[in-house]
Amino acid sequence: MTPIYDRVALIGLGLIASSMFWAMKRNTLAGHVTGYARSQETRDTARRIGLCDTVCDTLADAVQDADLVVLAVPVGVMGDIAAEIAPHLKPGATVTDVGSVKGRVISDVTPHIPDGVHFVPAHPLAGTEHSGPESGFATLFDNRWCLIVPSEGSDPEAVETLQRFWRGLGSNVDVMEPDHHDLVLAVTSHCPHLIAYTMVGVADDLGRVTDSEVINYSAAGFRDFTRIAASDPTMWRDVFLSNKDATLEILGRFTEELFALQRAIRQGDGDFLHDYFTRTRALRRGIIEAGQDTAAPNFGRSG
Amino acid sequence: MTPIYDRVALIGLGLIASSMFWAMKRNTLAGHVTGYARSQETRDTARRIGLCDTVCDTLADAVQDADLVVLAVPVGVMGDIAAEIAPHLKPGATVTDVGSVKGRVISDVTPHIPDGVHFVPAHPLAGTEHSGPESGFATLFDNRWCLIVPSEGSDPEAVETLQRFWRGLGSNVDVMEPDHHDLVLAVTSHCPHLIAYTMVGVADDLGRVTDSEVINYSAAGFRDFTRIAASDPTMWRDVFLSNKDATLEILGRFTEELFALQRAIRQGDGDFLHDYFTRTRALRRGIIEAGQDTAAPNFGRSG
Repeated sequence: MTPIYDRVALIGLGLIASSMFWAMKRNTLAGHVTGYARSQETRDTARRIGLCDTVCDTLADAVQDADLVVLAVPVGVMGDIAAEIAPHLKPGATVTDVGSVKGRVISDVTPHIPDGVHFVPAHPLAGTEHSGPESGFATLFDNRWCLIVPSEGSDPEAVETLQRFWRGLGSNVDVMEPDHHDLVLAVTSHCPHLIAYTMVGVADDLGRVTDSEVINYSAAGFRDFTRIAASDPTMWRDVFLSNKDATLEILGRFTEELFALQRAIRQGDGDFLHDYFTRTRALRRGIIEAGQDTAAPNFGRSG
Repeated sequence: MTPIYDRVALIGLGLIASSMFWAMKRNTLAGHVTGYARSQETRDTARRIGLCDTVCDTLADAVQDADLVVLAVPVGVMGDIAAEIAPHLKPGATVTDVGSVKGRVISDVTPHIPDGVHFVPAHPLAGTEHSGPESGFATLFDNRWCLIVPSEGSDPEAVETLQRFWRGLGSNVDVMEPDHHDLVLAVTSHCPHLIAYTMVGVADDLGRVTDSEVINYSAAGFRDFTRIAASDPTMWRDVFLSNKDATLEILGRFTEELFALQRAIRQGDGDFLHDYFTRTRALRRGIIEAGQDTAAPNFGRSG
């Protein structure tokens, strides 16, 4: 494949950026990839494992001459990074990000983007509960969705090129409005994460049930919650603070529904419960048919 | 291996019973296994796939001469089944069950158990979101826990033999009091399921987000909820109605915690969120170390 961008800069070298690097190499999507991470330790690790063609010690060096700059840092610091790299961006370059919230990132980053540079926000819907430069792998984005969320006045050609890039990384690509993106993600990702964190917190707090009981007997349902609740704390703190309105709206609906189910349990209304549980099965079937999960037994895991 | 029981009867031929059959065959734990299911269709399927040495058309035939009778039916009908089989049980036989709630099952079943027959409740903590006679597989219980919950006056020898049997099926075995069992399971399984059902219901209801958006963009967290929420509706209805007190207690705590996190989001209290999310990571590490899940990337799934 002919490289889509001659020079790509990855800012922040965690799970997403490191997976992007390996996926770029797999299909030769970039001529040269530079990387930058704030911590010396992360940069040392990146050099040791061959993550990025060049690991730079400053933001300015990393973005120098880059045709695509990828902001892969927690949502809360996107604006600061954008301000710092702005003077060093090449005219005609595209800046993108991989943040889980788009409204806040757009309002934080846009003011710093120089004339002649294109900002095209994006969000790959892929992840694991692991983080850091050693957690990436080339197939992370395969058959997952990447949402491109052009901000007002995004250059159509820059948008189109970024779409080709994400398809090259293995993703399906869709385009979405920022507000709608943040609502959809509140439902499919942000609230499920908060709820999983909450349930794990309850289990941890409960004096009458020991941690080892929770740990040993987690096979039936709870272990999926702990998996979700093990994700990166800084990233998730920023997500909730940055997508406050949509998160609180969906949590409000969630609580309403939960109270309805709780009331049915208290009143012994078996029909209500059975109807509810039957309806949720259909959505699951849709997800398997859409190829976003496996129907394999034992949740598709080996152990 | 010498069979532990000469004759075993499986009542109800769903995921658990069919997995028990294949696991018994794997290690020759039983001389002869009979099976019974209420529906003709399930019995036909069982005969077609070779599930059970003999599939019987009546409960009486199935339990005739059995040394172990396994009640593998929804918790809500355990008492009725016990009443129906009671006159046909062999003196000295053991009756056990695999229900997810123990207090209610013990109070429903015990009155029907004839003198000279032993009732030893049990609960294997293993499952998938699939149900029915074709969903079973021999390795379902491997390295999972089975909780033996002797009721008052359970015969020690019968308890000991049932423990050996579950170890033979691949499980680790622990013994627990009924009330404590129901509290532990409310935390590790029942409430997580209810919460997953609720979140999937919210997603399904939200007019502004389409089902296909939810389905396509479920990679990040939500798909684990849909997996849990796809479990058998009848089984789960009975679980919640039968473990009402512990479920409502844990839900109360859950709501309290959720409100605290919600308040932190509203007030922008990032430290509170970060501390909370850091704490839940530790519990996850414990589960991986206890061998109850894998640390493989992408949640250990292939796709």
